[in-house]
Amino acid sequence: MERTHPQTIAFIGLGQMGLGMAARLIEGDFSLTVYNRTTARAEPLVAQGAHVAAQAADAVEPGGIAISMLADDAAAEALFDDALLSRLGPGGVHLSMSTLSPATVTRLAARHTAHGVAYVACPVFGRPDAARAGKLWLCYAGPADVRPRLEPLLNVLGQGVRDFGEDPAAANVTKLAGNFLIASAIEAMSEAYALAEKHGVDAEQVHQLLSQTLFACPIYQNYGNAIVAQRFTPPGFTLRLGAKDMRLVQDAARTAEVPMPLASLLGDRFLRMLATGQGDIDWTGIAADQRASSGLT
Amino acid sequence: MERTHPQTIAFIGLGQMGLGMAARLIEGDFSLTVYNRTTARAEPLVAQGAHVAAQAADAVEPGGIAISMLADDAAAEALFDDALLSRLGPGGVHLSMSTLSPATVTRLAARHTAHGVAYVACPVFGRPDAARAGKLWLCYAGPADVRPRLEPLLNVLGQGVRDFGEDPAAANVTKLAGNFLIASAIEAMSEAYALAEKHGVDAEQVHQLLSQTLFACPIYQNYGNAIVAQRFTPPGFTLRLGAKDMRLVQDAARTAEVPMPLASLLGDRFLRMLATGQGDIDWTGIAADQRASSGLT
Repeated sequence: MERTHPQTIAFIGLGQMGLGMAARLIEGDFSLTVYNRTTARAEPLVAQGAHVAAQAADAVEPGGIAISMLADDAAAEALFDDALLSRLGPGGVHLSMSTLSPATVTRLAARHTAHGVAYVACPVFGRPDAARAGKLWLCYAGPADVRPRLEPLLNVLGQGVRDFGEDPAAANVTKLAGNFLIASAIEAMSEAYALAEKHGVDAEQVHQLLSQTLFACPIYQNYGNAIVAQRFTPPGFTLRLGAKDMRLVQDAARTAEVPMPLASLLGDRFLRMLATGQGDIDWTGIAADQRASSGLT
Repeated sequence: MERTHPQTIAFIGLGQMGLGMAARLIEGDFSLTVYNRTTARAEPLVAQGAHVAAQAADAVEPGGIAISMLADDAAAEALFDDALLSRLGPGGVHLSMSTLSPATVTRLAARHTAHGVAYVACPVFGRPDAARAGKLWLCYAGPADVRPRLEPLLNVLGQGVRDFGEDPAAANVTKLAGNFLIASAIEAMSEAYALAEKHGVDAEQVHQLLSQTLFACPIYQNYGNAIVAQRFTPPGFTLRLGAKDMRLVQDAARTAEVPMPLASLLGDRFLRMLATGQGDIDWTGIAADQRASSGLT
């Protein structure tokens, strides 16, 4: 049987998000060669028909498309090195979907250009279940001429794509701004609902009122439900990853000279939670820290 | 012509919100006697057929219904004194719609009870245009037996009523929690959009993405639109009133021993803006202060 999309796509990085996205692409009839530092993570994808590469550079094909979904800047810089990029080479495209710092993205994009590879930043909004279902929101920025080639992939992965122009860093700034808004909403609900509870008011009822009226949107509804139910495991997005993103926000704020008092407050909240061994719960677990500091059990 | 609702209602406090609510009630065929410290504010209501009382106590009738929409705790405590309450007397009901501190509400309710008057807390969510249109969200708490008598008024004023039980303070805690979430969202957007702009990213585009997806709800849409358009006058809700509410949040947090780092941060933001003469702009003007502190003009 012929595949709808004959070219093999390299997919690098099989964390919770990457695994769901790769599975979704295979279902969408794309042929994938996957790479992950821990190869065992690829097993469910192999069962779906994916090939596995022992090295990241082995996953890519000259002039092909590579997608990456990595945990941090260091992983992206280490994996997309000169060896991999010279193999991907002219005509190659890297669709970089990780949440990275704008400064790193600018540096990475230059390295890609030197090898004739197009660097497209396309960070995503959505939790692992949205990744698996192709319901992510995509923030695209990069060379416009390669977008038509990426369109079939974007359509399978996301429920919508917004274009932020030719500078890849712009998409990552947008992603950081969004994650900062999410963390801020979690912080605000955590404090507000602890206040209600300690005044003897049913926090669930307060949450229902607010999340069905003024704040009737996915972040307040979904994250607020987890907060009032105190459901912080299994994590959809760990506190540790949240702390990483908040560091990126604060770095970006320093680079651009933007004092962000709320980002500083969140940075400290995340650090305290890492320091006290709470890094592996979901980042809505900010509410657990707030409860503890309020004497709520 | 007979009115649908024959009894005259006392309406006390004609600020931006009270004026709209009173006009809405008259349109709903209620007969009102209104009181405001500055009598001239009542003129448009007189044109609609309202009576004006020279003193608050003159506005109420024995065993009747009084509605109040006042700027702060001090006004509520001063106006609903023993003289007024003894006139309102047994069978009387006070529908108190102001944003007040839970501690004040508990004190006021006891004073009402001593005079045989039912105290019902029913703070509202919504801007002046929503007040005028009867589209407020109402947080009701107080004696359940008087609610049927108030139902026709509530139906004209609001698009929905949530009941928080018999303790009036619970409704005010809920209102403070809600206003704290709103101020937090304004702070978060102000910082995020300044970050985007200083990185050369169109804040309007970032806002459109976020407020149409993860944050597709009235607060992010309406307040965010004002922030990106830098439209801070005329005020729908002044910074000064926001500062008052944040003080009530912080007082309530201290009473219940709930450390609220974000409320503290907002308290300082509001104080700085009051101190630098920015008290009369809309509270979305937090974004103006953030822009100034970021070197954006």
